[in-house]
Amino acid sequence: MATSNVERNESAVCISATKVNGTDVYSSEGEKIGHVDDIMLNKRTGSVAYAIMGFGGFLGMGERYHPLPWSVLTYDTEREGYVVPLAKARLEEAPSYTPAELGKDDRRWRDMVFTYYNVPPYWM
Amino acid sequence: MATSNVERNESAVCISATKVNGTDVYSSEGEKIGHVDDIMLNKRTGSVAYAIMGFGGFLGMGERYHPLPWSVLTYDTEREGYVVPLAKARLEEAPSYTPAELGKDDRRWRDMVFTYYNVPPYWM
Repeated sequence: MATSNVERNESAVCISATKVNGTDVYSSEGEKIGHVDDIMLNKRTGSVAYAIMGFGGFLGMGERYHPLPWSVLTYDTEREGYVVPLAKARLEEAPSYTPAELGKDDRRWRDMVFTYYNVPPYWM
Repeated sequence: MATSNVERNESAVCISATKVNGTDVYSSEGEKIGHVDDIMLNKRTGSVAYAIMGFGGFLGMGERYHPLPWSVLTYDTEREGYVVPLAKARLEEAPSYTPAELGKDDRRWRDMVFTYYNVPPYWM
C-alpha cells in the first residue's frame, strides 16, 4: 500500500494522485457538491480519463458516484477544490451510479456521461 | 479522504490511481525492486508525469525514493506489477532522494532523472 509519507505532494507543475483524492468539488455557484473519491487513468495514454466523485450517502450506505470527465474540472486555488461549470441542479441530474452499477466495464455508461457534460470522449 | 470503496478499480481501458499506488515494480531481470508510492500528475495536461517508487528503509526510517518517468513503466500482467527496462544494478545507481530532498520543487532534480532514463521531459 502507498505509504503516503512523501513530503512533496504538489509542485508548480505537478500534483500527487493521493492529494487529488479527497479534494472537494464545487458547483458553478460555489456550493460544495462532493469530493474526488478516486481518479481513473487511461492505461494506454497515461492521462486522467475521469474522476469518480462521491456525494451523499450516510455511513457509507447508499452512496452514489458521479463519473466526471477530467476536462470539466478546474482547480480553484481560493476554495482549494475543483469547480465544475454546471449549476447544482444540473449536476444533481447528471448520471450517477452505485459502485455495483459502475462495475468493471465503463463502456456501459461512459457514452452517456461524456455526452451529458458535452466533452470529447477520452477513449478515442 | 478517499473512501476507496469504489468496486471498479480497473477496466479494459482504465485503472484507478488508488490501485496503481502500492503496485510492485520489477527490474528487467524480474527482481522486485520496490513499489509505487504515489503518482504525480501534470496539472496542465492531466497526464502522469512520473511515479514515486519507494524502496529500502526499515520501519519507515531511511526510506529513499526513485522518481520514475511514467514512460519507462510497463505493466506485466503475469507479475501483476510494473517492469522497468533496466537491470537491478543500473536501477540502484539511478537518482534517489529522501522525502526532504524531493522537496516541493521537482525542477531541482527532474533534469537529472529524465536524462538518466533517457526519456523526453514531461515538462516540455
